[in-house]
Order: sequence, then C-alpha cells, then structure tokens
Amino acid sequence: MPANFGSDNSSGVHPSIIEALARASVGSAPAYGADALTKKVESRLASLFECEVTALLVSTGTAANCIGLATLTSPFSGIYAHAEAHITNDESTAPELYTSGARQFIVGGDDAKPDLEELAQKIDVSGARGVHSVQPAVISISNLTELGARFSPDEIAAYSELAKNHGMKLFMDGARFANAVAGGSESPADLTWRCGVDALSFGATKNGAMAAEALVFFNPDEAILAEFHRKRGGHLWSKYRYLAAQFDAYLEGDLWLELATASNTIMARLRDGISSSKNASILAGGGNELFISMEEDVVEKLLQRGHMFYAWPSLPMAYRLVTSFTTTTAEIDEFIDDLNS
Amino acid sequence: MPANFGSDNSSGVHPSIIEALARASVGSAPAYGADALTKKVESRLASLFECEVTALLVSTGTAANCIGLATLTSPFSGIYAHAEAHITNDESTAPELYTSGARQFIVGGDDAKPDLEELAQKIDVSGARGVHSVQPAVISISNLTELGARFSPDEIAAYSELAKNHGMKLFMDGARFANAVAGGSESPADLTWRCGVDALSFGATKNGAMAAEALVFFNPDEAILAEFHRKRGGHLWSKYRYLAAQFDAYLEGDLWLELATASNTIMARLRDGISSSKNASILAGGGNELFISMEEDVVEKLLQRGHMFYAWPSLPMAYRLVTSFTTTTAEIDEFIDDLNS
Amino acid sequence: MPANFGSDNSSGVHPSIIEALARASVGSAPAYGADALTKKVESRLASLFECEVTALLVSTGTAANCIGLATLTSPFSGIYAHAEAHITNDESTAPELYTSGARQFIVGGDDAKPDLEELAQKIDVSGARGVHSVQPAVISISNLTELGARFSPDEIAAYSELAKNHGMKLFMDGARFANAVAGGSESPADLTWRCGVDALSFGATKNGAMAAEALVFFNPDEAILAEFHRKRGGHLWSKYRYLAAQFDAYLEGDLWLELATASNTIMARLRDGISSSKNASILAGGGNELFISMEEDVVEKLLQRGHMFYAWPSLPMAYRLVTSFTTTTAEIDEFIDDLNS
Amino acid sequence: MPANFGSDNSSGVHPSIIEALARASVGSAPAYGADALTKKVESRLASLFECEVTALLVSTGTAANCIGLATLTSPFSGIYAHAEAHITNDESTAPELYTSGARQFIVGGDDAKPDLEELAQKIDVSGARGVHSVQPAVISISNLTELGARFSPDEIAAYSELAKNHGMKLFMDGARFANAVAGGSESPADLTWRCGVDALSFGATKNGAMAAEALVFFNPDEAILAEFHRKRGGHLWSKYRYLAAQFDAYLEGDLWLELATASNTIMARLRDGISSSKNASILAGGGNELFISMEEDVVEKLLQRGHMFYAWPSLPMAYRLVTSFTTTTAEIDEFIDDLNS
Repeated sequence: MPANFGSDNSSGVHPSIIEALARASVGSAPAYGADALTKKVESRLASLFECEVTALLVSTGTAANCIGLATLTSPFSGIYAHAEAHITNDESTAPELYTSGARQFIVGGDDAKPDLEELAQKIDVSGARGVHSVQPAVISISNLTELGARFSPDEIAAYSELAKNHGMKLFMDGARFANAVAGGSESPADLTWRCGVDALSFGATKNGAMAAEALVFFNPDEAILAEFHRKRGGHLWSKYRYLAAQFDAYLEGDLWLELATASNTIMARLRDGISSSKNASILAGGGNELFISMEEDVVEKLLQRGHMFYAWPSLPMAYRLVTSFTTTTAEIDEFIDDLNS
Repeated sequence: MPANFGSDNSSGVHPSIIEALARASVGSAPAYGADALTKKVESRLASLFECEVTALLVSTGTAANCIGLATLTSPFSGIYAHAEAHITNDESTAPELYTSGARQFIVGGDDAKPDLEELAQKIDVSGARGVHSVQPAVISISNLTELGARFSPDEIAAYSELAKNHGMKLFMDGARFANAVAGGSESPADLTWRCGVDALSFGATKNGAMAAEALVFFNPDEAILAEFHRKRGGHLWSKYRYLAAQFDAYLEGDLWLELATASNTIMARLRDGISSSKNASILAGGGNELFISMEEDVVEKLLQRGHMFYAWPSLPMAYRLVTSFTTTTAEIDEFIDDLNS
Repeated sequence: MPANFGSDNSSGVHPSIIEALARASVGSAPAYGADALTKKVESRLASLFECEVTALLVSTGTAANCIGLATLTSPFSGIYAHAEAHITNDESTAPELYTSGARQFIVGGDDAKPDLEELAQKIDVSGARGVHSVQPAVISISNLTELGARFSPDEIAAYSELAKNHGMKLFMDGARFANAVAGGSESPADLTWRCGVDALSFGATKNGAMAAEALVFFNPDEAILAEFHRKRGGHLWSKYRYLAAQFDAYLEGDLWLELATASNTIMARLRDGISSSKNASILAGGGNELFISMEEDVVEKLLQRGHMFYAWPSLPMAYRLVTSFTTTTAEIDEFIDDLNS
Repeated sequence: MPANFGSDNSSGVHPSIIEALARASVGSAPAYGADALTKKVESRLASLFECEVTALLVSTGTAANCIGLATLTSPFSGIYAHAEAHITNDESTAPELYTSGARQFIVGGDDAKPDLEELAQKIDVSGARGVHSVQPAVISISNLTELGARFSPDEIAAYSELAKNHGMKLFMDGARFANAVAGGSESPADLTWRCGVDALSFGATKNGAMAAEALVFFNPDEAILAEFHRKRGGHLWSKYRYLAAQFDAYLEGDLWLELATASNTIMARLRDGISSSKNASILAGGGNELFISMEEDVVEKLLQRGHMFYAWPSLPMAYRLVTSFTTTTAEIDEFIDDLNS
C-alpha cells in the first residue's frame, strides 16, 4: 500500500470520535453550547490544563487562531510571527479579516522558531513612532512549529518575557500541540500558562477529530470579546454539541495523547529509514513532520508508485512528509523501499 | 414527554447522516474538497437544481449567507432585506465583516416578506447620490421566511425583476429551503434560478444534518471570489469530506425532502391543536414554524411542565414554536393538553 | 445675480480665515499638531465649551463623524440614527469602514429628529439576543438636523437618558452646530455635555472655513482611541497648523457665531418670500435650510434663470435651499421675483 | 538661526499657493470637484504627464497611498514593499483599513529600494498555494525612497516587468516625486507610465503646499473604484476647489520643480559640510534627505543649540536631516559650525 504523507488532514476520524457523534445525535439538546456535553468538555479542559479556562470550540484551525488573535488585538495592532507560521502562510488574509486589519510582522529563525533578537528588534522599530506606528500587541508561536520543532517551557518563557516587557500577549497556535506534548515530559500546563502563554488554539482535527479545535484562554477576562468574534465569523455552531462530542471523546482516557504519540512514533521509523537512504536528505522535522530534499527523478518515481506528499515551497527543493495516527508500518516500509530502489 | 419547540437546531442528527460520517471516516482522502465524495455531492446538487452550479459547503448558515453576500457585493454596497431576516436579526455584524462593510437596508412587509413598494422606494432613495450614496447591490429574501411564510415563484420573480432593473442580484437565504419545497409542488429549480435567484444558501443543519449548508451559485462565474471569502473566513474545512458526507446522505433518496415533509406535517397537527385552543392565538407561521401569543400565566405553566419554546421579541407577546423531523405526536399532544388544561 | 442655494459647501472662505492661513504659512512649526497654534485652539475650545475637552481637527465632516463613531463603538455595535442623517445618507459606507463594520439602525421621526419611542423599541429588539444580536452602542443625532430643525437641551437630554439606560453613548453631528447655537439662547455647553452629549463633530467648513471640523470629546478618557482612528484613516495632517489656523480665526471674536447668525438671518428673508408665494410651499426647514415643493415648470424656469438648488430625494417633490454667510439680499430678492414671475 | 531639519512637513506654504487659496476663496463654486479650477488642474496634470490620467486630489499622503492601493487590490491581496516604505512604517494600519485587509509583505534592499531577487522570491512563496495564500497584487516603490534614493527608469521598469509577469500592478509613492524629477533629466512621464507605473501618489504637501496630494492613475479604467474609496475614507472635500487651487499654483510655471530643485540644491551644501566633518558620517541620502550617524554628545550639543532633527530608528545610531524650499544657507552654515565646534 503506497504511503499517504500528504497531510494529517487527509487521515480519517478516530472510531471513538465517530461513536461520540453518534451518541450525541440522539434526542434534543439546547443549541449554541448551552448543553450538558459542552459543560463536560469545559470541565475536562480545565482539568487538563489544571486551571480555570474559557474555551471556545470551533471547526477549523484558521477560525481558532484568528478569533484568538482578534480577541487580543485592536485594528492598530501588530502581530509578530515566524515566516513559516500557519497564520502567515496558510490562512489567506483571515487574520486581517478577524482583527479588522491588524498587521503581521514576519521574522526568521531556525526550525520555524521566531528568532528572539530579530523579534525584539522588529518590535522596537515597528512600534517606535506613536500613532504613526503599528502598536505591538501579540507574539504568536506554533508548538509544534510548522517545521515540526518543539518549544521547551524555557524557550516559551523567553517569548513571554519579551511580550510582557512590551505590554504584549503571547498566543500559541497549537494545531499540533498534542504532538508537542507527546514529544516530551511536560504537562499541557507546563507548556502554556505556566510559561506565560495567554491563549492557545488546541487542535484536534489533525489528530483524529473530524473538525474541532478549542480556543483556550488562560485568563477568562480576556476572552469576553472572543464569543462575539466567533459569532461574527459565523463559527458559532447551532448544534454545538457535535463539537463538544468530538472533544469529549478526544479527551476521554487521553485519546489525544495516545494518537499523537502514535503519529510521532511512526514518524521515528520513517525518519530512520530516510536518514539511512542515499536518495533523500533530511532538512528539518520533528513530531509527526519531516522535511526532506530529493532529486526530481526520485520524486517522480515515488509519486508514480502512488505515494502522496507535497512540495514545501519555502524551503529549497523540499518535500514535506506527515504521519498520522492512521499511518501504518507497511506504508513506511513500502515508501522506504521505493525510495531506495 | 414535554415538547421541545425551541429550535430545529436542538434536534439531533438523522441516522443516515451519522452513518455517512462513519463510512467517510475510514481511510485517507485528499483534503480541502479534492476528494471523490465532494465531486459526487457537487454532481448531486447539479442534478437536483437541473443546471450547472458552483456549490461551497460550509458548517453554518451564517457562513453560507455571509460568504454569499460578500461574493455579490463591494464594500460600498447596500443589501436590502426584511427586518425579520436572519442576516439582520441573528448574525451579529457578520454580514458587515464578510462584505468589508456593506450596509443593510431594512424594509417591512407582512409575514417577513419584504414589501415590494417600500423596497423599490428605499433602493431609489438610498442610491440616488452617486459616490455619496450606498450602491444598491443585493436583495436578500428568505424562503421560508423567518415567520414561516413561503414564496411562490411569481413572488420571487417580482424581486428578481426589481433587482435586475437596478443592476442588483437576488440572494435567497434557504436555511429552511427544504421546508419551502416540501410545502408546494414546485421543484428546487422552479423556486430559484428559474425565477431569477442568483445564489442560495441551501440549509441542511436545521433539517437533520449536523453542521452543513451548501452555498449554491447558479452562475458559476459569479462564484469565483466565493472560495477566497470562504477560506478567509476560516470556513474551508481541511477534512472537507465530512461536509460532503452529510450532504451525500441528505440528498440520497431525497432524504432532505422526506425530513422537511415530516416537520411540516407534524406542525400541521400542532397548528390544528392551537387553533382550536382558547389559550393561544396564532400570529403567523408556515412550514415548520408557528408564532403564537399567549398570556404570561399560560406561558409560565407550559415552561414549568418542561415544554421548550422561546419568546420572539420582534412580535408583540409572541412565542415561536418550531418542529423538526424528530418531533413526535406525543410531544404535540402533551403540549396541547397542557395548553388547554 | 442669480441665487446659489445649492449648498453651504459652495460658498467661499471667510477672509479672516484666509488671512489666518497666510499668517501661519510663514516659518517652520512642528508637524502633526505639536505646534503652538494647535495648543491655542485646544484652549479656545475648552473655553468655548466651558470644560476640559479633547479635540481632534480634521478636514471633512465625514471624517469627524466616523472617527467619532469608531471611537465609541466596537465591530459588534449598533448605531441608531434618523433616516435623513448625514451618516446614513451622505457618507457612503464610511461609518462601516471606520467602525470595522458596526451596523446602522435607522428610525423615522418628524423634522429628521429620531422618534424616541421607535428608537427605544429598535434598541430593545435589535439587542435582545446576546451574541446573536448587534450590541446597541451609540445614538447619533444631528443639530441642526438634516432638515434644519433644532434640538432643545431637553430634547437632547431625552436621548441621552435613553442612551445611558442602555449603556450607550450619545453622539452629535454638528456640521451645522453653529446654526443651532445661533438659533437660540443656549450656550454650546448647554447644547452638548450639559444635556449628556458624549462627543460632537463641530463643523466649520459649511460656515466659512475651507476644510476644518473639530471632533470634540467631553470625556477625554474616551478619546484615547480617536487619535489612532484618525491616523489610520489618513486624516492626521502633517502640516496640522493649517487646520488649527482655520479654527483659530473661526473662534476668534466669535466669528463662527457671527457667520451662522448671518446665514440664519438671511434665510428668514428667503422663508418670508417663499411663504407668501403661490408657486412654492414650505415642507420643512430651520436655521439656514429650507425644503420646499414646487411644480416642475417652476423649477425649470428658476434653473434656466441661473438659480442653483438641488432636489431632495427623500421628500416627495422636494427641493432644498441653503443659505450661507455669503448669501446676499440681492440673490434672495431675485430668486423670489423669478419664483413669482 | 538654528536649523530645522526635522521634516519637510514643518516648513511653511509657498506664497503662490496661499495666494491661489485666497483667489479661490471669493465667490461660489460647485462642490465636490465639479468646479472649473478642478478641471483646469486635471488638464494641467494630463499635460505634465503627457497622457490621459484620472487624478484624485486629497489632503494627505496616507490617503493618496491607501486609496491607490485599495483601488488596485482585493481583500485577499498581497502588497510588496520595502521595510522602510512609508506605507509600512508611518501609516499605522491605514493600508489594511483601506484595502479591507490586504497584507503587506516586506523586503529588504539597499537605500530603501526593494531587492528584486528577494521580491521575486517572496512573491513566489507567498502566492504559491491558491486559496490558502495571499494573492500577489501590487509592488509598491517610493521615488525618492524613504532613504532619499532615486530610481532610474530602467530600475522602475524591472519592477514593472516583475509585476506584469505575476499579474500584479506597480504603485509609486511619490511623496517626494518632485525631488526625484528634480534630481535627474527624465520627465514625469519617463519616471512613471513609460516604465510601467500604474498609479502614482504625486505629493505637494512636503514641497510647498498646505495639504494636497494627487493620486494619479495612468489607466483611467482602473480608477473607477478610487472615487468610492476616497468618499468612503472621508477624503472627498466638499470645497474641493481648495485642493485644486493648491495644485493649480503648484503646477503653474513649474513651481513644483523649482521648489524641489531648491530643496535638493541646498541639501548638497549640507551634505558637503557634513562629509568634511569629523563629528558625523553619512549613512544614506539623496534628494532633500540625509541620514547621518553622530555620537550622543554631538547630538546633545546640536539639540541644545536649537537645531531640529529626529532619530531614525530603523538605522543604527542614525539621524535624519531634511531640507525644504525654505531652508536657508544660514541654517546650513550654523548647523555645520555647531557640528564642528
């Protein structure tokens, strides 16, 4: 069976989550999040993060990120992110739409981690002239980053300190937060509010859910406007319990962690295979993502044999391979065999 | 069992739709609508409407309406709708967000049908002064209307003619389009493009789906920008096939029509019961909706017995009762008994 | 000499204001309002209004109104105004642009004064459903109204009370505020903050200036965001002293009041002439504005003789006549003669 | 007399322009640009640029730039400019406001000229993923650049070719266009449409006017939406002839070129003085701008003696010196003396 490394978005939905949807489909329940299942999920999230949180469930990562950013900014604000960030590269001008026109400032840095020095310098320059300048408001980081790298709590704290020194907030795009947690020993709390994250988009879609992301605010006061932004974006589901049902199953028995661990583990097998191949070389990667370079004829051959993966235009000659909880060792092995043949 | 007439949004998901989601959950498929199931649904919609269409699937009615309106307007545009319209009353300032600030002009009219004369007059006055004026761009009607009334093709054609005479487009909010079709003998084509509708939000969520609406453009050229607006609003699902799966089951064997017919039919029973009660009087309604007035003590009693329904603030002393495909005759009968007791 | 009743915008600039510009044109001064003349004008405005104010000078009434509204609203807000209001009828979708998409709700009422009862009812209905509803934020009135009517302090206080009861603000479009003050015995303070006005656009352009309006906040704390909105709209003049120079001359020796009194007084002569003519009848008016109806052949004749005035589409068969400080008795008399001939 | 090198915005208004305003202040004229003086200016601009143009007069450079960009973009668009560009550094989020949220992509390059290779690469990467990507729409350059550098027609043509190859437009911020023309032998046409510029903001404010910029479209078809954007931004002056009067005098007898030549010439004297001083070193500059580095104690001394100039935060230890048509040799000499003392 050829491998599908195209995206964690192309994988299916975990059976437990489908079953949860089926269970929730019977009978009536109050609309717009006033149901019991939603309350249960909110309570589960508070337990998971070991603190009081406000959590808004939405169906896409773009919505979670942009509603989060809109809540933490004004139309005069600047948002600082890495050039590879999803909010920069993959969400059209959705951040501008939701924030009523806040501006993104882009910085470089290895492994898609914003370079702290460049970040500090851009914040200083861009915000230096009062009303003429964009007002620095949010630093946004992704954990895992878009190149699969993982932030440690200390690294996160350095961004948080920079943010606080400038009266800014720290936002975390956690589309692959589960893979980040699975990749180390720290708790969700250790990787968020304990090191200064103000809000997190906690992804489920790429990790076994159908369409569900939780936008989590660690300071509930800051979340007041988020509900308005969500409604205004058309992201408040009337049958909200079907977002809640996905998260209920996702959190039950730490399914989220189990699935992310599976993705990360099988990626390790893929990475091993590639690192010992003479037909590809590893450029970057971590968690469930790997970025490799290959010659065109190798790429051609792999595609012809039915393997799926995409070019990554921001790195030279690069291709991205992504595993998910559904990736099989058979896929890995067939891919490596074809690569080496 | 007390009745839940609160909203068609509080009802569950039809088993066929859950089964379709479960079937689609197995295996990989291309993301973002490049999958086979999506193609199948697009083909089904073309058959249903008997013409070539461009259809965008999204998860909420607000998204479908607002992406549709944004596609047909500029930031200088005026949108003309009835004061009861969902885009006016229930979607926060989502229309302004998606259209980059087009303005809504509100008209009156019986049964939530925009009064044609007032409409024509408002279009003339509001657009009379060139660059100083808002440019009339879209007439938006809902079928069923928010008060449950149904438009005939002739009525729709009158709006279309007015629109065309002013270089405007005709948009139809079809959150309850299935109930409108079920309420008469005309086909979906008869009620849309054949009488001049340019774009339709074709609802499924209120009628048995989980979260799925199809934004249908009858002139595919006009739809080009819609995909950008959808992405920009964060409404392009990565695992798009789960929107498609809902619509696949919804359209299969005319399930959509069967469910809407069921809702309408059981509403007829409720209407009969209320019309012969001395404790309530009917103000408006049609399809699966009924608007009644009751004294406060009657309302109090019904709520205490566990029946669910909401006040409708734009009508005096009014309450809205909504049925769905899950409403049972037992609920109806218990409600009527309690009303009369 | 035929009369020019087309607009107070077609009149020239008062010599004192031109002289002030000439005086300010010599030598260097700090840019962006950090100059001495600006400080002097701010002090003059504080004296005029008998309280501490924050005043932003801009070059158009649309800018003053929309920056004011943007400062008092959020993107989820509703603004309530009369159907004849300038922000509704004459400013394209500028209010939506500046407010990031707040919505205007339009009410009726005689003389372009918003009907209090309808206003209260629309506020209640439109804001009734939490996050689904637009949040009532601002009542906007014009003094003079667009039909020339004048509000008394008691009338204004009634709007203010309604606003405060709903946590809203009261904004006053004062494009013809000078004519309103000139039309009665109350002070500028009496007609604004003393009866609850939160912010005022105080016009000079229509009353002898070149291009100058002061956006005045009576609660300076509320004005903090206004400077950002002004800059963001491109309305912060680099050579700000030329806005200040206009206002300096406008306020010196109460020139503003003298000019408005002249406009109002000469309008009285025109009104007398028309009221005794059988070829026109008065529909509305006050201050320096008059709205009359005439038969088409009368209109034709007057235009052919070179008189200038415009149709007013929102009133049936109506034409608007406006005087300014430059209107002469000769113009009035020639117009009346031609009307009666 | 100490020197004022703070900004060309701090200089006065040329007497000819004040006289033109005074002349225009007498008598009535149609509002909103329907007057004869406006027609005359439009005709002057067509002559100056040797082609048919559509020109919109506004009072600030931010307005001219942002209305221009809004006309050439959609809300999904990307605008590519140098990190030093005025639209990037000095206009808050005005570009985002006017474009309904188009995004700015920032590139580096010497002398504030966008590096062509980096530009091409950013356009390719940022626009590579269809609906997920921002759509490349406009390259924006400034001539003079913000560091005083001048583009030759060949250099401009290279940007134009890159733009055309990607279906993009080329916009020129000409706040100091007069200084660019004065700095070489090419005509205004040579520096704009003949080398592919689609629209230009042609500045007058920094070069002797009070508040006047012309937004010039070389393809009038593209300008249709510009008038709506201008009105919507509150930048359509009612007494438009006072913008026209400024431009009439500015263009009469090539006053614009005479003033820019004066600014450039006196800057040459300043540059000479500084280049032979041991207390300052030149970092960049051209036209009427010079960027120098000085030790803090030198800066301190100059400021204490009353000279005015500002730090330039985006260059290390840099200060900007700007001359205008009012700068005197006495100012230059006193500054140099104090610098060397």
